[in-house]
Amino acid sequence: MTGTASRPTLEAVAERAGVSRATVSRVVNGGDGVREPLAERVRRAVEELGYVPNQAARSLVTRRHDAVAVVIAEPETRVFADPFFALQLRGISKELTAHDSQLVLLLTEGRDDHARVGRYLAGGHVDGALVFSLHLDDPLPGLIHGAGVPTVFGGRPGWGDGPPDAVPAVYVDCDNRGGAREAVRHLVGLGRTRIAHITGALDQTSAVDRLDGFRDVMADAGPELVVEGDFTPAGGERAMRELLERRPDVDAVFAANDLTAAGALRVLREHGRRVPEDVAVIGFDDMLAVAEQTDPPLTTVRQDIEGMGRLMARLLLRRIDGGVAEPGPEDSSGGVVLPTALVRRASA
Amino acid sequence: MTGTASRPTLEAVAERAGVSRATVSRVVNGGDGVREPLAERVRRAVEELGYVPNQAARSLVTRRHDAVAVVIAEPETRVFADPFFALQLRGISKELTAHDSQLVLLLTEGRDDHARVGRYLAGGHVDGALVFSLHLDDPLPGLIHGAGVPTVFGGRPGWGDGPPDAVPAVYVDCDNRGGAREAVRHLVGLGRTRIAHITGALDQTSAVDRLDGFRDVMADAGPELVVEGDFTPAGGERAMRELLERRPDVDAVFAANDLTAAGALRVLREHGRRVPEDVAVIGFDDMLAVAEQTDPPLTTVRQDIEGMGRLMARLLLRRIDGGVAEPGPEDSSGGVVLPTALVRRASA
Repeated sequence: MTGTASRPTLEAVAERAGVSRATVSRVVNGGDGVREPLAERVRRAVEELGYVPNQAARSLVTRRHDAVAVVIAEPETRVFADPFFALQLRGISKELTAHDSQLVLLLTEGRDDHARVGRYLAGGHVDGALVFSLHLDDPLPGLIHGAGVPTVFGGRPGWGDGPPDAVPAVYVDCDNRGGAREAVRHLVGLGRTRIAHITGALDQTSAVDRLDGFRDVMADAGPELVVEGDFTPAGGERAMRELLERRPDVDAVFAANDLTAAGALRVLREHGRRVPEDVAVIGFDDMLAVAEQTDPPLTTVRQDIEGMGRLMARLLLRRIDGGVAEPGPEDSSGGVVLPTALVRRASA
Repeated sequence: MTGTASRPTLEAVAERAGVSRATVSRVVNGGDGVREPLAERVRRAVEELGYVPNQAARSLVTRRHDAVAVVIAEPETRVFADPFFALQLRGISKELTAHDSQLVLLLTEGRDDHARVGRYLAGGHVDGALVFSLHLDDPLPGLIHGAGVPTVFGGRPGWGDGPPDAVPAVYVDCDNRGGAREAVRHLVGLGRTRIAHITGALDQTSAVDRLDGFRDVMADAGPELVVEGDFTPAGGERAMRELLERRPDVDAVFAANDLTAAGALRVLREHGRRVPEDVAVIGFDDMLAVAEQTDPPLTTVRQDIEGMGRLMARLLLRRIDGGVAEPGPEDSSGGVVLPTALVRRASA
């Protein structure tokens, strides 16, 4: 990189093109209102002198854009329908704002658009990326790796042996397996014996870990007591209907998240089952907008979603500043795993 | 991050090919004006050195980032709490995806962060900006103007005589005043005589226009029948309580949006007023997630929020591509104003 002394100035471009500084500035910044022959003259002078406009030049030198991308590997409609993402973004936003770094949320219609997200990340627009809600077969981790920007993941990434170059991924997660175990043990403690699990989307590690936690306690549960959901209320409704057909005698349900539990509660009410008398229900997340509004209010496993967002942002800013992200004591591969806590309300 | 040191530079290619930097740049970016034997020499040098054009540098020349910023002049918490924004973003996202342009949502904690948004827009990261929910004293229009990127506004901007340089702002809006008139006329037609209005945030043109529409019909309404809200359910509750104290005999309410109406309905129920028998209520927006869920379901003024988002994106992409945004027939200052329609449900 050449020093600033030798870098051609805006004035030099103006002189070369025979126009005013204001005209150069307007052309360079993509503004309107400059006639084409004039604009062309300015562009030629820019190229001939190798002039780099100020802001971009600054970021080429400092290599800082004071901006961080957030990528949620879900279509835009789900990002706005699931309060989990709003909570996590709230934590991220607070932390980035405190460091005067711009939060840049990259929205997509679906997985087909992830290549474009990779191009934006590689394009020199952000200092780093926070990525969450990854799915196992998602091309994003490879694309992000190719983009070469510092990244912190929300939730343990699902690749088997680490990312392509075996650099440990830095991530923030909660103790999904331990939290699930505590929920199911609580149901056992209530004397329930026919305890079912409605899973999350099983192409996500959080869903797999919660299922593992369920099995840790209910090793003998028959396969008909595990029904696949997808972390949405509609998925919870579908799964609960299937469960009631398979096992009409079910007396407890551990749902993979609060939205799933809310769907299950609706179907139980439809079928005249009393909660918790006939069927006890526990969720996961403790999103107050959901867990306090259900009928009855939901017993659930609390994770500090906003706090996880803050921590992700903090770890990323530290990596950007050239420090290293501190790996948590619980995990050797650069992950920080936060504890969970059972919150008892009326549903179990 | 891979080191820049090992990556071949534009200069190295120029040296290898024995041409100027400008010539390499022109060939690499697919530009014309380089004679074929020279261009071929450059291409060979590119291949031999394994030169990969720097994306940021290339976009300085091509002047395209294939990305559009969306700026909502509200704190991140409101963006996620009000389904209006999700609907508008859905329309924008669909349109941008169809043009393979990345939607970049710039989130903030509040107005203090708008200078940073201006810096990002000026930093050469996007081809243009869609800006909505502006407030009268917001510094954003000036910052955006300074950034010099093509912009389309959602909702008529509130500045009196156009932006600083008198270039007409391009915007998409609905007929707020006409829609309000239709709502209030409907209440008059039902025989209501003590018709009140709960306004939106009066530092936004949409709220002012709806208030004007109310006054067009109710020129004689006393000032105690107009209470200020802020487009939120909490604001609607506060305003409805105040209204019931001022005018316990109120027999109809036109609320500035559906969320405000939802808050007002809750307070009316609390006070034992039957809707619509005692008090008829009309909202504005027709957001199904709100208007169909209230008790009773809400009569409201429909605007095509998602369609407005699509149209904003379309107009912006046309400006970016060098065409001009077509001004609507209804407005000479570059605005496109879409019609509204009254949707009758049980509340009025």
